Amino acid sequence: MELSFDGRRVRGGTAARERFYDSRGYGRPKDGGLVLAPVEAAHLLFRGDLEGVVDDAGDRLGFRDFLRRAVSEVAFLVYKDLRDRGFYLSPDGPTAFVVYPRGSGPWDETAAYRVRAVSERAPVPAAGLRELATGTGTGVLAVVDEESEVPYLGVSEPTVAGATDHELPAVEGELLADRAIAWEPPSALHERAFYGQPLDRDGEAIQLSLVEAAYLAATGTLGLEADPEAVAARGRAVEGERFDRRRRVYRTLREAGAVPKTGFKFGADFRTYAEVTSVEQLGHSERLVRVLSAGHEFDPRELALDVRLAGGVRKEMVFALVGDDGGDGEGIEWLALERLTP
Amino acid sequence: MELSFDGRRVRGGTAARERFYDSRGYGRPKDGGLVLAPVEAAHLLFRGDLEGVVDDAGDRLGFRDFLRRAVSEVAFLVYKDLRDRGFYLSPDGPTAFVVYPRGSGPWDETAAYRVRAVSERAPVPAAGLRELATGTGTGVLAVVDEESEVPYLGVSEPTVAGATDHELPAVEGELLADRAIAWEPPSALHERAFYGQPLDRDGEAIQLSLVEAAYLAATGTLGLEADPEAVAARGRAVEGERFDRRRRVYRTLREAGAVPKTGFKFGADFRTYAEVTSVEQLGHSERLVRVLSAGHEFDPRELALDVRLAGGVRKEMVFALVGDDGGDGEGIEWLALERLTP
Repeated sequence: MELSFDGRRVRGGTAARERFYDSRGYGRPKDGGLVLAPVEAAHLLFRGDLEGVVDDAGDRLGFRDFLRRAVSEVAFLVYKDLRDRGFYLSPDGPTAFVVYPRGSGPWDETAAYRVRAVSERAPVPAAGLRELATGTGTGVLAVVDEESEVPYLGVSEPTVAGATDHELPAVEGELLADRAIAWEPPSALHERAFYGQPLDRDGEAIQLSLVEAAYLAATGTLGLEADPEAVAARGRAVEGERFDRRRRVYRTLREAGAVPKTGFKFGADFRTYAEVTSVEQLGHSERLVRVLSAGHEFDPRELALDVRLAGGVRKEMVFALVGDDGGDGEGIEWLALERLTP
Repeated sequence: MELSFDGRRVRGGTAARERFYDSRGYGRPKDGGLVLAPVEAAHLLFRGDLEGVVDDAGDRLGFRDFLRRAVSEVAFLVYKDLRDRGFYLSPDGPTAFVVYPRGSGPWDETAAYRVRAVSERAPVPAAGLRELATGTGTGVLAVVDEESEVPYLGVSEPTVAGATDHELPAVEGELLADRAIAWEPPSALHERAFYGQPLDRDGEAIQLSLVEAAYLAATGTLGLEADPEAVAARGRAVEGERFDRRRRVYRTLREAGAVPKTGFKFGADFRTYAEVTSVEQLGHSERLVRVLSAGHEFDPRELALDVRLAGGVRKEMVFALVGDDGGDGEGIEWLALERLTP
């Protein structure tokens, strides 16, 4: 069976529709016949189900010629991988697919996954990930690595919430170069609300990170000789605008009832605890949070690294994308990524 | 006991020298007396071994005032942590230390570690890490995180070498957008020399990553209709200069007898095998390699992430720092980092 290729689509008649669409979910029916996207035709050619397609010049193209001329091989490799896993799927643009639940196909209306295929080497703008996070079915980034294996990353919008709430009395502190110290704080500061860390095992002094100190100073809990803005200036001196982004994310998390602490050991900005009643009964932190600007372009390797490490320590990897529009918690978009196996 | 502080150093007499230097390794002797760096005096004040130091104006400074006025608290926290671990150490600049082997001290000449203290928040230029990699004793980056815990990262210069060597016959291939395909290659290409990956389980076609294709084309093994430089141009189109850096590192590794394959799953540029005789008997890859420009500034969180992930999969984390001086393997500096516990 040979179909025709007009440079954009591959077309066939009733027999092709019956054979490829009705029974195996390739293409879409039109006027009783069949229209295939190039990646679908490439897969049929690759499998030998089609011998060739004939272009407008009357030339017959086999798999190799057709792949070179008409198809992104990154899209082809993802299409092939999902077919190999037993899914039917429909192209939704040159490198995107709607994947139907197993046992279902394009004649149904449901979608299990919306998949976007990218190369290991191609940067992914944050906006592209945000787009994947909304819609029916799970948004998935399919990264074709240099060995053409395809790790899948599920993208979703996490709910930022927690159940931590403590009333704190006023605390006096002192601003140092890279942190603040509360020399004689109320014990609730650390032991209940989990701010800071003891300076020494036996002492009562609590050191606060600059981001904690900036938050506590801004909310009026921490009294410093320095102006609250001086804390932020100290933070910016080393980190620049990044400090302000981290401060906004910190505040948003605290206000939502979650407790952010440094995620340094995990290579993240924060690890977060949804509910802290006391440090003695501290549970497992559930999330790792990386703070980025809303315009960030992800290197897929970064994503792979973060998601893999988070998975290894059984935490959810969350990205906080901070816009420029200065709002308090507004202007932050949240994305959760996890490795998944379709 | 009160010592004097001239704004730079803390000084004491014979009794101070005997008590602090001779028996406990603080400071250095001078003219029979003792000279302490501020961080050493701060530690003695913190422990209560000194009640105060007297400045030029005759004011008596306790720990809190002295810390604020004279000492980087990042340096203090590292100094304290190493003392708590049972080491004697001497300041070597405001945030660097020479650490003596356990049971030894400044009266000996040996150094176990050369430690540089940085904040979690402060970028570390590649040049600073390179400096740590050379000298007597292990170079160590001590990162003070926002909770004032101190992970230690050992820095060294790895030997880039391997024992892989295969003669390959000429291979014909075709350049696609994001990889090349050798449709009917000699089986040794993949099965012995471990280039590329089969396009399909049963087929003989081998897909090559652009970095593999660029190397094989440049060495004359891979014949393409396209010019070898066209492969590099294809790589640069997506990755820019980064592709050239990766290509140089790839070539250097191959020429040294190591086999680099994508490190994507580990968030790295390459994983490497020191010796590949056949793909069937493939061992464990020993290293992860991240390719960076020589002028890169490391965010300590990146380092923590890479080193932690590499440790978790029992591989050595190696950074290839690629200079602009275009040499073949020249102009690349190698650094290995690992978590260590002094």
